[in-house]
Amino acid sequence: MSEVRIIDLKANVLEDNDKKAEMLRSRLKENKTFLLNLMSSPGSGKTTTLTQLIKLLKNEYRIAVMEADIDSDVDTKRIIEAGADAIQLHTGGMCHLDADMTEQGLNSVNFKDYDLVILENVGNLVCPAEFDTGASKNAMILSIPEGDDKPLKYPLMFQISDLVIINKIDVAPYFDFDMDKAEKNIHARHPEIDIIPICAKTGEGVEKLADWIRTELSSVSK
Amino acid sequence: MSEVRIIDLKANVLEDNDKKAEMLRSRLKENKTFLLNLMSSPGSGKTTTLTQLIKLLKNEYRIAVMEADIDSDVDTKRIIEAGADAIQLHTGGMCHLDADMTEQGLNSVNFKDYDLVILENVGNLVCPAEFDTGASKNAMILSIPEGDDKPLKYPLMFQISDLVIINKIDVAPYFDFDMDKAEKNIHARHPEIDIIPICAKTGEGVEKLADWIRTELSSVSK
Repeated sequence: MSEVRIIDLKANVLEDNDKKAEMLRSRLKENKTFLLNLMSSPGSGKTTTLTQLIKLLKNEYRIAVMEADIDSDVDTKRIIEAGADAIQLHTGGMCHLDADMTEQGLNSVNFKDYDLVILENVGNLVCPAEFDTGASKNAMILSIPEGDDKPLKYPLMFQISDLVIINKIDVAPYFDFDMDKAEKNIHARHPEIDIIPICAKTGEGVEKLADWIRTELSSVSK
Repeated sequence: MSEVRIIDLKANVLEDNDKKAEMLRSRLKENKTFLLNLMSSPGSGKTTTLTQLIKLLKNEYRIAVMEADIDSDVDTKRIIEAGADAIQLHTGGMCHLDADMTEQGLNSVNFKDYDLVILENVGNLVCPAEFDTGASKNAMILSIPEGDDKPLKYPLMFQISDLVIINKIDVAPYFDFDMDKAEKNIHARHPEIDIIPICAKTGEGVEKLADWIRTELSSVSK
């Protein structure tokens, strides 16, 4: 895939989303494809994190990325340049993806051809947390400039995530971000959650993130 | 008001929101109260900006702040400490406020007693842009760490805002944020929009923001 493909998604509000999500998760498992749902605020570094991760993993796994956005295709171009296949999903103004929309994207990307599919969800800490996409696991990024109080304000996002990536640790000296306080706030919402601090810009810590992915994929490898 | 009052809002999905918003705007005008709707991503500095602004304006105007959040009341406490009256609005999981919810908040705060009421909307660049709250004017914050490409990804937010505050200019040297590119992207979405760069942490540029407010209020002063 060398040019950007754009898929316009349609929301199916009538269907029971949780049931649809469970069915999709089973379908992914049968096909030994791991789907990671990556969420965060706008501008916390999802795409940069993915480009670094793709560099480390592209020779081990077949990787595709589904870039969900209200508009634009700037992120998809960056992912393709980093060496993975990617499609752009346009949500038609919706601030999240539900399981049906995710399945439309997976079908468009021919997910059975991949070991790892990553859904870069719409930049938003509220809506994406409210809809189970059917992903194998949920990860979120909290960036240093956003502050260590975000788990207090957006509790559901932290509760439904399996991993919190703390990004932009290189600029920590310039912000009032207390890492211990952040970890305490995160664990108060979700005691078993994994936390990996990184700097996506320089690549620092991304090897640990790659290891987290490798561990998850070892349980579903083809 | 010395303790935090929390109002649980109820969404009224049946009513015509645009009509309700226009009615609310007229009601505010009649009472000579200016309502500013302040929006942004999570962690872009809404509350810090407001605390600096309140310091500059509290001796000139009677100010109240309505702090909308999914959960928590940490921001309301900070506003009260800065010297303004404030109430906490809980949105019950909703990622935005509509005109009816805004009016519930305004009635709770007795808006007729104030010259300036500021609604600190839920941290989100998608949903709040889709619902007219009935505010006199809309302002949004874009912080440097979020990146200069946000107007491309969240077009509606920039289209419906009257003012973009570019915050965290003190950390600009540590991020790949091109101010000229940002302004070009913003003006491509909304040619007449005002842009004010500030550093809410140090107060740099906040005097210009206070002047913007003064100009707006001079047209509705009591």
